Amino acid sequence: MTGSVSRPRIGIIGTGAIGGYYGVMLARAGFDVHFLLRSEFAAVAEGGLHIDSAVHGPLHLSAVQAYSQAADMPPCDWLLVGAKTTSNASLAPLIAQAAAPGAKVLVLQNGLEVEDELRTLLPDSLHLLGGLCFICVHRAGPGAIVHQALGAVNIGYHSGPLQHDAAARQALVEEGAGLFQRAGIESQAMANLQQARWQKLVWNVPYNGLSVLLRASTTPLMSDDNSRELVQALMAEVVRGAQACGHELPAGYAEHLFKVTEKMPDYWPSMYHDFLHKRALELDAVYVRPLAAARAAGCELPKIQALYQALAFIDANNR
Amino acid sequence: MTGSVSRPRIGIIGTGAIGGYYGVMLARAGFDVHFLLRSEFAAVAEGGLHIDSAVHGPLHLSAVQAYSQAADMPPCDWLLVGAKTTSNASLAPLIAQAAAPGAKVLVLQNGLEVEDELRTLLPDSLHLLGGLCFICVHRAGPGAIVHQALGAVNIGYHSGPLQHDAAARQALVEEGAGLFQRAGIESQAMANLQQARWQKLVWNVPYNGLSVLLRASTTPLMSDDNSRELVQALMAEVVRGAQACGHELPAGYAEHLFKVTEKMPDYWPSMYHDFLHKRALELDAVYVRPLAAARAAGCELPKIQALYQALAFIDANNR
Repeated sequence: MTGSVSRPRIGIIGTGAIGGYYGVMLARAGFDVHFLLRSEFAAVAEGGLHIDSAVHGPLHLSAVQAYSQAADMPPCDWLLVGAKTTSNASLAPLIAQAAAPGAKVLVLQNGLEVEDELRTLLPDSLHLLGGLCFICVHRAGPGAIVHQALGAVNIGYHSGPLQHDAAARQALVEEGAGLFQRAGIESQAMANLQQARWQKLVWNVPYNGLSVLLRASTTPLMSDDNSRELVQALMAEVVRGAQACGHELPAGYAEHLFKVTEKMPDYWPSMYHDFLHKRALELDAVYVRPLAAARAAGCELPKIQALYQALAFIDANNR
Repeated sequence: MTGSVSRPRIGIIGTGAIGGYYGVMLARAGFDVHFLLRSEFAAVAEGGLHIDSAVHGPLHLSAVQAYSQAADMPPCDWLLVGAKTTSNASLAPLIAQAAAPGAKVLVLQNGLEVEDELRTLLPDSLHLLGGLCFICVHRAGPGAIVHQALGAVNIGYHSGPLQHDAAARQALVEEGAGLFQRAGIESQAMANLQQARWQKLVWNVPYNGLSVLLRASTTPLMSDDNSRELVQALMAEVVRGAQACGHELPAGYAEHLFKVTEKMPDYWPSMYHDFLHKRALELDAVYVRPLAAARAAGCELPKIQALYQALAFIDANNR
């Protein structure tokens, strides 16, 4: 019932901006992609998925294999989880239902330790991987996604049957990266998922938080000396936290992300959209756990701590 | 032309909430008080000054000695400056015009080094003092002031003819405190003005800034665990900064102000009113100079630095 190795069957759990974008790109590359949807099921089943991409032009996947229930999906070899970290517990049974035996579950979420809760709720036979998406994308309406820039995905192995076999684990991660690469998407197999997550935090900690705190998108944040310095100081603290936790990030990595952001089109990070729509902010994954991990390693991150406390106040008063 | 020692003549330069409140209290205690006004001159000359006080009940000073120009004022023995720190340079000539020979100029403003610019613009013969007001008061309309709680003023000597005579200097500061005390206002003569200013910063740094950053008054800030911790962390940094600059604040001082604030009625600090009315925020006095003074003493204050940078971004985008 599952797809072949050369054309694995891919399930998208949570067809928002991230799941929708990568799902459409993979489907256009010839993969057999199945989309699980909730509120947008009817719109997508009827009208398909539309991506307004500044990189690829307008994309339209008309014949979407759309499902409103995981039980209706065929068993998938790869499952891409693009939902919010705050909903992981409720997603676990859906993932298990849609998974072929030995399936690979790739969690496309930001933050630290986002797989840990899922892991305890999934069968041991499933591989769990994490993916960090460097992309400017947001949902514009039912079945409609706007892709502004970038698109790379860095992948690492979290846990599962290959946990203790480094070589086989890495081969599987490379298989995952290969899927994206065949769809024209830049993708790196990371030897260390935790390090990959810390690297992504170098971007998310400053920009996600400051977008909410200062009600500002990337262009104004990068146009003011004070916010630029604050971004850099927060990035430097993430790098210090990573280091304290044993992850030496590549030299100049923060500067690289800072420069990438300068060249990006004006972008509102996902946390701002959550704030605007009065949804829970992903504070645990992006702030609480990194702060706790750094502290456990004897490293205080005072500016991130202050930013987190301010955001927690805003979040509590926003819902 | 000046008043007697027992009944000195007092001029109020900038009859906003602070100048208006203390001016009315002093006038009601029998002092000869003269008020300099700008936009509110006509309203006050006609209708007087009204204070809606939660402490004293409604107060009305009907026959206000009001002036629209400093040149029209009689020479005053004491001048109370209640305007924003951001306008000090333009106030200096008005102060000089209204000052009797050897007059005492008391700057009722928050922040560090707020007297320094004034000093260079005033005659050497004038005494310059600073006063720190612990009071919840705001302007409600032309000639109308709301007094919610507290009222104490701590006074210290900045510079002038008595600069090198500690005993005479302290006697003059006590004379100033005595004016307020005779009006029923708690007032302390502080031996060290810089220390007094650092003490007041323990309150202003967290509450002024967070009121703007989080659009929150004191009650919500004191009702949330995260903002409470953030307030305490910012207070602790001010205490460290003071210490680095050689000012050992009284033991438990931050805890004392924290508890006072818990018992206060819900209060919007003055910086929030400035933000709301798109006026310049007093960032130099409350943040830039304390940060620079601490840094010059080898002490970094990372959370205050982050708060300042966020506020500077907000301020730049607010005007």
